[in-house]
Amino acid sequence: MNEFTIPALRPPDAALAATIQAKIDTKTKPLGALGQLEALARQVALIQQTITPVLHRPHVLVFAADHGIAAAGVSAYPADVTHQMVRNFAAGGAAINVFCRLHGLELRVVDAGVRGSFADLPAARNQKIAEGTRNFLHEPAMTPAEMHRALNLGAALVSEVHGTGCNVVGFGEMGIANTSSAAVLLHRLGGVPLADCVGRGTGLDAAGLARKHAVLAAAVAAHPAVDGTDPLAVLATFGGFEIAQLCGAMLRAAELGMVLLIDGFIASAALLVAWRLAPAVLPSCVFSHESAEGGHPHLLRVLSAQPLLRLGLRLGEGSGCALAYPLVQAAVAFFNDMASFESAGVSQVAAD
Amino acid sequence: MNEFTIPALRPPDAALAATIQAKIDTKTKPLGALGQLEALARQVALIQQTITPVLHRPHVLVFAADHGIAAAGVSAYPADVTHQMVRNFAAGGAAINVFCRLHGLELRVVDAGVRGSFADLPAARNQKIAEGTRNFLHEPAMTPAEMHRALNLGAALVSEVHGTGCNVVGFGEMGIANTSSAAVLLHRLGGVPLADCVGRGTGLDAAGLARKHAVLAAAVAAHPAVDGTDPLAVLATFGGFEIAQLCGAMLRAAELGMVLLIDGFIASAALLVAWRLAPAVLPSCVFSHESAEGGHPHLLRVLSAQPLLRLGLRLGEGSGCALAYPLVQAAVAFFNDMASFESAGVSQVAAD
Repeated sequence: MNEFTIPALRPPDAALAATIQAKIDTKTKPLGALGQLEALARQVALIQQTITPVLHRPHVLVFAADHGIAAAGVSAYPADVTHQMVRNFAAGGAAINVFCRLHGLELRVVDAGVRGSFADLPAARNQKIAEGTRNFLHEPAMTPAEMHRALNLGAALVSEVHGTGCNVVGFGEMGIANTSSAAVLLHRLGGVPLADCVGRGTGLDAAGLARKHAVLAAAVAAHPAVDGTDPLAVLATFGGFEIAQLCGAMLRAAELGMVLLIDGFIASAALLVAWRLAPAVLPSCVFSHESAEGGHPHLLRVLSAQPLLRLGLRLGEGSGCALAYPLVQAAVAFFNDMASFESAGVSQVAAD
Repeated sequence: MNEFTIPALRPPDAALAATIQAKIDTKTKPLGALGQLEALARQVALIQQTITPVLHRPHVLVFAADHGIAAAGVSAYPADVTHQMVRNFAAGGAAINVFCRLHGLELRVVDAGVRGSFADLPAARNQKIAEGTRNFLHEPAMTPAEMHRALNLGAALVSEVHGTGCNVVGFGEMGIANTSSAAVLLHRLGGVPLADCVGRGTGLDAAGLARKHAVLAAAVAAHPAVDGTDPLAVLATFGGFEIAQLCGAMLRAAELGMVLLIDGFIASAALLVAWRLAPAVLPSCVFSHESAEGGHPHLLRVLSAQPLLRLGLRLGEGSGCALAYPLVQAAVAFFNDMASFESAGVSQVAAD
């Protein structure tokens, strides 16, 4: 087996920071008046190590996979929906298709481990590890070999997309029961109490939520040795094939100097694994939104993340990335295109 | 003088509401999973009274004016900046220019009452009432005749823009010291304690904030008869020419069935006047963002408004409208273009 090599990431060189801030502060607006967009402009400029950043060929990558834990009744939807939704993505009918078309992002759909074949669908890229993970209530979700293969395949897709000229990439997912996987990853790798990690997913009622919590508590208890000190062991035991491919993809994107757009709870859980493996992935990440899934605010807090949007979304698919992308464009645009006080002949604030 | 006629607004007919909700609930996503975008789609469909809404020729109207109260030292910037920024708008160098170009909105810049001439600038539309308002610390900011003229001119511009096919319009402003005007409007018309209405504007320090509060408390005390029961008296006494033109513009836009995008504190204060005159203006309003200006969250609460963005913006100019517009597009796009469960062959959640 080819082991996945964790990249030796370093935070962006901060030498440019003062120049970047000076450029922002000469724009024709009160100091700080563009709020979070100013932080975003600083971040993109630092990632790209330039005072003239450019966003090129934005992509959203949607990784889909099935989950053995679905058999334990943790989702409001039947597991077949994963397969059906991949077909919907390929046909262009899902929310992520609509938002990518609207805002000019290219979409790639990846079968990371969905049950059933997409041989008839060229739009669904075959990176299938297996027909879904095993049920981690009883056994590890995947073998180490499967996990390494997933990490490598995720990374390889990013390399390919980067090769087309893309320098900004959003990460989405689809997989019935994958909020269960993400909840346990947050519990084990983020040190958050399990009850705070477990949410309603696609729409569980109170009884369904209680059942999901009981199932996941039993699953955690079934793997007492997997305590969070080894992020890859946690990923293999409780993860999903889409989550592992996302994790590898994110690490490669950071290594390549791309801007990473993080979606909701599951994508953030994949990033949590990546962050535990290589903490310097974080300065490359733009957090699209805070989702309505119960565990997501806790996960964002663990990562000290400042999300751009708070719209009560809980859809996944990378939809938050596509919705937040116009704000990233706006940050780059004001930084590059606004007039300065001097060029526009506008008086600056009087020094006290 | 031609008195402004307050339109007899009625809330949109709700007969379509169930049909609209049914269309949303058959889309290939968990029920409610698009959060606030679903409410936005419902709102736009109800305003347009259709299940196939369209956004056409989006505009941002920026009304600029000077304020007599600036002489009392309530702003961090000199009053000349209003004039200079109008020139910056006309030259295309301000944030609102950048954001409108980026997101495909047409921009109109209006001299509602700025000191100095723009005769050399065809891009600045002349709707000047006077060379700034009077200082409301000592006398009413404008005469009733000036106020009615301002309301009518704002409304006339909206009629003209609507005549080009525009059905969605953002409202912005520029005017050194206009957070002072807006603060007193909120205090008198929203019943909010003055201290909660007064913020740092373009960037006052603690001493400047204290001075601004003292000035505005004295101004309120100087007009004891203007207690908030008569919204037009409050507008004439404490308002600005840009605020009055915005108010007339908003009422006309609602009358014409347009979607109104509300920007930050000053635009919301203009809406507060409009709402007191004609409460049914509110269902036509999309609140772009919650600004970092101290009084804005209070003002949004008075209007029971749910803003789309919370990015710590405090720039004005309509910048929040332009930044939020892609979310309005996204709401309309998912509502029109997403596949249904039936058309995509996706299983719905099992009924309990």
